[in-house]
Amino acid sequence: MIIDCHGHYTTAPKQLEEWRKRQIAALEDAKHVPSKGTLGISDDEIRASLEGAQLKQQRERGTDVTIFSPRAMGMSHHIGNETASRLWSEHCNEMIHRVCALYPENFVGVCQLPQSPGVPPKNCIPELERCVREFGFIGCNLNPDTSGGYWKDPPLTDKWWYPLYEKLVELEVPAMVHVSASCNPAFHGTGAHYINGDTTAFMQFITGDLFRDFPALKFIIPHGGGAVPYHWGRYRGLAQDMKRPPLKELVMNNVFFDTCVYHQPGIDLLLKVIPADNILFASEMVGAVKGVDPETGFNYDDTKRYIDGAKGLSREDREKIFSGNVHRVYPRLAKAPVAAK
Amino acid sequence: MIIDCHGHYTTAPKQLEEWRKRQIAALEDAKHVPSKGTLGISDDEIRASLEGAQLKQQRERGTDVTIFSPRAMGMSHHIGNETASRLWSEHCNEMIHRVCALYPENFVGVCQLPQSPGVPPKNCIPELERCVREFGFIGCNLNPDTSGGYWKDPPLTDKWWYPLYEKLVELEVPAMVHVSASCNPAFHGTGAHYINGDTTAFMQFITGDLFRDFPALKFIIPHGGGAVPYHWGRYRGLAQDMKRPPLKELVMNNVFFDTCVYHQPGIDLLLKVIPADNILFASEMVGAVKGVDPETGFNYDDTKRYIDGAKGLSREDREKIFSGNVHRVYPRLAKAPVAAK
Repeated sequence: MIIDCHGHYTTAPKQLEEWRKRQIAALEDAKHVPSKGTLGISDDEIRASLEGAQLKQQRERGTDVTIFSPRAMGMSHHIGNETASRLWSEHCNEMIHRVCALYPENFVGVCQLPQSPGVPPKNCIPELERCVREFGFIGCNLNPDTSGGYWKDPPLTDKWWYPLYEKLVELEVPAMVHVSASCNPAFHGTGAHYINGDTTAFMQFITGDLFRDFPALKFIIPHGGGAVPYHWGRYRGLAQDMKRPPLKELVMNNVFFDTCVYHQPGIDLLLKVIPADNILFASEMVGAVKGVDPETGFNYDDTKRYIDGAKGLSREDREKIFSGNVHRVYPRLAKAPVAAK
Repeated sequence: MIIDCHGHYTTAPKQLEEWRKRQIAALEDAKHVPSKGTLGISDDEIRASLEGAQLKQQRERGTDVTIFSPRAMGMSHHIGNETASRLWSEHCNEMIHRVCALYPENFVGVCQLPQSPGVPPKNCIPELERCVREFGFIGCNLNPDTSGGYWKDPPLTDKWWYPLYEKLVELEVPAMVHVSASCNPAFHGTGAHYINGDTTAFMQFITGDLFRDFPALKFIIPHGGGAVPYHWGRYRGLAQDMKRPPLKELVMNNVFFDTCVYHQPGIDLLLKVIPADNILFASEMVGAVKGVDPETGFNYDDTKRYIDGAKGLSREDREKIFSGNVHRVYPRLAKAPVAAK
């Protein structure tokens, strides 16, 4: 079985975005009383939104299951307040729940957290629990920068985050560290802010002692770990200069990289420097890059081809990357309907 | 000849840092009248600061010349105001000038700019001109984030920067895009902020039309281009999705990557995906990573070994990377004393 651990519902029916637009407009009005309302999206509309996109690509590319979460750009925790973020997150997560109910063999859910600038992350616990316990979700996306590019949250190793981490460990769900849209003109979203978020998180993990306090906590750093594998020598050397343990001991029981790297040489590097035990297959389709690479004739984000094309990858390591590791990182996957596939 | 295009004076005599500490302390006192004063550093102290460090490493590693600039962390443009930044930059640049005068065969200068948050970059022109015309410097370091990790400056493609670019073109000097220390607890300096700065700048260049307006403007993106070569497929794909020209046309006449990547697989990737015409040899010694890699027995930042160890690199491309390209990117190098070496 081939499991893609990183897919977003980027193709949701337009009513979802329209609800959000109405919500944002209402935030301007100080007297407005926020309410959740309904989206008015039918099951058929959900099916239509997936059949020609994620499901088609699963079939064409030969992947079986996508670990599926709300659109990352859409989270935009910098907009509005805690209540706005909660109502929006509930709608987004409920859409994922409906997708998973309609296609229990193709999708398994991961939730958006109702984070909001300056609001303690522990306030996200009720929505996390609802998604895991009621909807059967197996993970969450954690935004390390709710400001949207101004980086005002404490580092991920700060005790600010600990109550949420305690719950993640208790529920046995990992977090993918995933920033959202950038409202900072310095940062292009998918081209700079996303990749910087990944690099930043990894360096925070090296610097702190988070995994001494939470040995069972697991993070996925998406987009191939940002700049980290390319600069693996730099990170090994920085840890060494700081008298930290080797990276293998320091973070590699807890940190995993996905394969959202959109060319063969990048994947080859990832496979060369990062232990196979720490790599999870992913494509982020339908996502950041939609086009066809003229150098290969295939979609940039058809990352399965790069894994298939990697020379010298053993059958055992291949199996770990496509399926084995994901079961280790997301233990609740074993209880999901897809596990019976 | 082997030219290292990226070295900082990280080993300057302690009086330089002491001057800076006094300056920072004085900034607390509203009544203090800033003055430049003197450092009281002798030529012998400068020699001693280099002999056991940069010069020793040049000899041991077999490199000939270092393009040398003030310590990047030390720039800290976020501290103080425009006057403070100007006085500090003058001292730092004068130290580089003295180094180059003492060792004209080993070092050629690049200046720190007296940038300051909210202050138009054109105000840096007098110090740039002084360094180039009077001291014979051949380039400058340009900080895209004078806030020190909060990213409040306009993107490098914004007209805010244009008067400075006009002067760079007129003087025929390139800029290395180099952030300074991070005062944002989210970002480790050399492990996150530096690399993010590189990635961010490249994406800004893709998004804007800067090189249509300044076809002769040249930037070096240090640290191997941040995350860019590892994600080269992503950047090609993003440009394509945005209906921009291919990267080769869009930025590769103007943007160059250095080789400050501290392990063989990283350098191999860089050499594979980036045209040799766009790569400049560099080590950043004595810099971010000081230790010896237990996997090789050599210093992490001994990047010449990785170039020497790269399989399939043609003699012609090797020469371009070690020496040829740097003459193209820094035309004033031809007039420097090192050129006679």
